[in-house]
Amino acid sequence: MEKKEQLYEGKAKKVYATEDPAVVIVDYKDDATAFNGVKKGTIVGKGVINNRMSNYVMKQLEKEGVPTHLVEELSDRETAVKKVSIVPLEVIVRNVAAGSFSKRMGVEEGRELLCPILEFSYKCDELDDPFINDDYALALGLATQEEIDMIKKYTRKVNEFLKKYFLEVGIKLIDFKIEFGRLADGTIILADEISPDTCRLWDVHTNEKLDKDRFRRDMGNVEEAYQEVFRRLGLA
Amino acid sequence: MEKKEQLYEGKAKKVYATEDPAVVIVDYKDDATAFNGVKKGTIVGKGVINNRMSNYVMKQLEKEGVPTHLVEELSDRETAVKKVSIVPLEVIVRNVAAGSFSKRMGVEEGRELLCPILEFSYKCDELDDPFINDDYALALGLATQEEIDMIKKYTRKVNEFLKKYFLEVGIKLIDFKIEFGRLADGTIILADEISPDTCRLWDVHTNEKLDKDRFRRDMGNVEEAYQEVFRRLGLA
Repeated sequence: MEKKEQLYEGKAKKVYATEDPAVVIVDYKDDATAFNGVKKGTIVGKGVINNRMSNYVMKQLEKEGVPTHLVEELSDRETAVKKVSIVPLEVIVRNVAAGSFSKRMGVEEGRELLCPILEFSYKCDELDDPFINDDYALALGLATQEEIDMIKKYTRKVNEFLKKYFLEVGIKLIDFKIEFGRLADGTIILADEISPDTCRLWDVHTNEKLDKDRFRRDMGNVEEAYQEVFRRLGLA
Repeated sequence: MEKKEQLYEGKAKKVYATEDPAVVIVDYKDDATAFNGVKKGTIVGKGVINNRMSNYVMKQLEKEGVPTHLVEELSDRETAVKKVSIVPLEVIVRNVAAGSFSKRMGVEEGRELLCPILEFSYKCDELDDPFINDDYALALGLATQEEIDMIKKYTRKVNEFLKKYFLEVGIKLIDFKIEFGRLADGTIILADEISPDTCRLWDVHTNEKLDKDRFRRDMGNVEEAYQEVFRRLGLA
């Protein structure tokens, strides 16, 4: 599998074409951004961690019946994945109140929710990824009812898997964001990444934050937190 | 039916106890507020219009299988209604893009939506009634799944009825807000009001606004618009 021309450079990844039109190569960068790109920085080693962790998790999710974009890990930072057109929904699951949810809803960070919340944001930088509901997605033509049902079914499986996976190494899964894509034939598969960039992860005993909030909130020890998750999961 | 002590004074209504503990009397004021009480004013005659119109609509909705709080119209401004504890959800239906939806989603006012949107806001003045989804309502204990299902079923019926009702007199129903309450035994019924305070109503030919947006946006002819709706509906 060989890198051809660069197709796209995002906040945390570059994407390259390959000789196979159905496959692209993702190259994970150490660049970090927050608040829709307003805050920028670097988290040394992040690209390697996110690449490895995401691939490991996707492999496990495939076994749980969640189809993913993963084709093959090519190097520390590079992975071949199925080319998709991204469904313009950020799919967020919240098990514990934190972040924007806590602020908007007046619920203190760390409060366990009565049940997990699954929510959608409309992926649109100019609008700041507004929070929407299912009807918005239908009324604006962002996804069909069948796609929404499929996305929700897969997302619940991802949450069940990740909660257990992290808890086994003493980490509480507070919330996370995933994205789905459509293959050329319309099949919905899990795409993008699952990493400390896209999950809130707290130490189960101390509630120490082991995720990108350390970067967002200038808490220090950002690299160390990413490495700690990587080490605990036995991926280092 | 006699007014006893005042139980509550809201932005647009006063509520009084009666000799029957299951019944209260609502007294519609001419006071108008907008933007969570930041803008205040008076719309002369509004109380009469909202009282009459709301009662008429609720009577029709009962026939369509939507239970309501209506007991009996007592005067121009006063109505006896069943006492409920309000479900803390503002239930909003959008048929056409307008208002906060247009702003948040970058969709021009007046654009027809592919399908009606039903959405919930959490009724909470301190939080500015934040937009939520079904999972939020469940996770925060605002309503049960059975209540949400019932509320959605009734709300869709209300939308179908109101769209037709207004269209017959040359008015397009853009969007509206309703609220539901629980009786002592837990039964869900339509409560609050349905009026030009709670609906966006546009003339079907000219798109002239015939609702509270004239007040919100300082467009003038506020009283005239309310009277016009009242007159067209044959309620004046």
